[in-house]
Amino acid sequence: MSARPRFRRPLAARPNPLDNEFDLIARYFSRPAPSGYLGVGDDCALLPLAGGRHLATSTDLLIEGRHFFADAQPEALGHKALAVNLSDLAAMGAQPLGCLLGLSLPAVDADWLEQFASGFHALADSAGCPLVGGDTTRSISGIVISVTVMGQVDARQALRRDAAMVDDDIWVTGALGAPDIALQLLNGTLPMDQSLLAATRPTLDRPEPPWQFAQKLPGLAHAALDISDGLLQDLGHILEASKCGAELHFASMPVHPALQALDTGTVQQAVLAGGDVYQLCFTAAADKRQAIQQLADDAGQPISRIGRIVKQAGLHVWSADGQTISLASRGYDHFS
Amino acid sequence: MSARPRFRRPLAARPNPLDNEFDLIARYFSRPAPSGYLGVGDDCALLPLAGGRHLATSTDLLIEGRHFFADAQPEALGHKALAVNLSDLAAMGAQPLGCLLGLSLPAVDADWLEQFASGFHALADSAGCPLVGGDTTRSISGIVISVTVMGQVDARQALRRDAAMVDDDIWVTGALGAPDIALQLLNGTLPMDQSLLAATRPTLDRPEPPWQFAQKLPGLAHAALDISDGLLQDLGHILEASKCGAELHFASMPVHPALQALDTGTVQQAVLAGGDVYQLCFTAAADKRQAIQQLADDAGQPISRIGRIVKQAGLHVWSADGQTISLASRGYDHFS
Repeated sequence: MSARPRFRRPLAARPNPLDNEFDLIARYFSRPAPSGYLGVGDDCALLPLAGGRHLATSTDLLIEGRHFFADAQPEALGHKALAVNLSDLAAMGAQPLGCLLGLSLPAVDADWLEQFASGFHALADSAGCPLVGGDTTRSISGIVISVTVMGQVDARQALRRDAAMVDDDIWVTGALGAPDIALQLLNGTLPMDQSLLAATRPTLDRPEPPWQFAQKLPGLAHAALDISDGLLQDLGHILEASKCGAELHFASMPVHPALQALDTGTVQQAVLAGGDVYQLCFTAAADKRQAIQQLADDAGQPISRIGRIVKQAGLHVWSADGQTISLASRGYDHFS
Repeated sequence: MSARPRFRRPLAARPNPLDNEFDLIARYFSRPAPSGYLGVGDDCALLPLAGGRHLATSTDLLIEGRHFFADAQPEALGHKALAVNLSDLAAMGAQPLGCLLGLSLPAVDADWLEQFASGFHALADSAGCPLVGGDTTRSISGIVISVTVMGQVDARQALRRDAAMVDDDIWVTGALGAPDIALQLLNGTLPMDQSLLAATRPTLDRPEPPWQFAQKLPGLAHAALDISDGLLQDLGHILEASKCGAELHFASMPVHPALQALDTGTVQQAVLAGGDVYQLCFTAAADKRQAIQQLADDAGQPISRIGRIVKQAGLHVWSADGQTISLASRGYDHFS
């Protein structure tokens, strides 16, 4: 817990800008970081190890009915439970070391367990992040999943949110907007469109954070965050911690192709403020452009350069015709 | 998760020896440990770090109605949530590095949060195990607490369950039996006796694992486990992993003084099989007796030498008059 503990966007609720109760929670758990401990409040905390390396670690709770639907496919859920945590390691540029799983189940269902474990282990194997321990118990009501990931990183090169520099390029990995559209279709905020749901739902149910590409970024990039709370919200955290501003160009943003037929306002809202995007926003000096693009090409990782860090505080998004884009909501940041 | 994931004794249920469903769960999550990873299935997993050190880590879920009562004092609950995890670090002889907290609450209650945080932080501060990160979310029903601890240990000296040697002394820290009696009074298995409850309940609500003493044991002791599932059950895990047997003398056991007025059978059951005892059972060579006793005296940590590791498989407990003690139940090991 930290100055600003990071929250996952609950599926079951839309943001409520008036409900700022998590500031209250943070007040009770925020403590000054002990000497040598870094990154408290970042995607991962960094704990000092012998030899100048740091342990990067993060934990997430996933609650049935809030973070996933009761009918979620267990294989996808096993994948996602680990993926959202690997995203936190990726956002620090850390190399996965292992993970722990806490699982509270209302009943023991062999089919469910087999599929959940299969999704979890498949991602753990490919990411080199073995499951090394855990705790299982019977729950009183729905499923509760707690995952903790651990990784290693050289603290001098860790992608901390306070490391952005003026004139840095701003990059994002992957494509934006699709998970939010899937959520809106499922929640009824958008009228149901089965083909649009089919095209967007995989990004919600099976996020693929760029853990492989991200491990190579330390030394090239400065700051990074995953954009699970929405691009503007999370980039805002970088700007606040790094004491600078940003200019973004909407025309440069990697809008998910499934969103083409939607109206401009809906697309802008989803791309700029939509959560559950387990991709990275990172900043890097302009003279690293070529090296970063090469790294992305080598890893088969799509990336887009979407703007620039500026000295003046504030976050401006320009449309293709030079207008400022403003939004009803900038993303999810509430205990709602 | 492991060959035998370790379970906390639920408050709301008594052991059910016929209900072995957690073997089913273990089957889906057990994987061969990657090279260099040790202790999978022990109190902590040990992950290889640079420089020959290992990261010791463990996670526990505490569910309202199962692991604590809905009316539990939040300050004590904050203490206990961390204490049960520090007990796992102690059982490996690891030095605490930091912890993570996942908290799912049905509502934000400032008084509750303040007291919970106060109990948690007080123990974290005294044990040198700072809270470095976490996740908070609103739950659908009761409170869910997930704590992960991390520590460091030299893997060659870690107190692994498979490290007991024939002719080792068997030691326990602290006093035994009181938490089980408190539970039985609260559950109605024993008729209510308010003064007995007052004398035993603190051991249930505010366990004090010997984390300070335990950090000094590597190099002196061989195997260790915490006895949260009961002495015979947890010592049994050491014997199984170390391929040996044990002889115990009941007369040498540190029976909690509050249990004096109870009948012999109740006391034996509570001392030998009662769970929720966040104390250590450890083994060490006989030539280390004096050094270990000196260490305990220096730390103000009561310890008792209760028996001996033998070559022949099996676990025998002798009463003062030379009879074998047998019990209805040997402890808690089920998903019930």
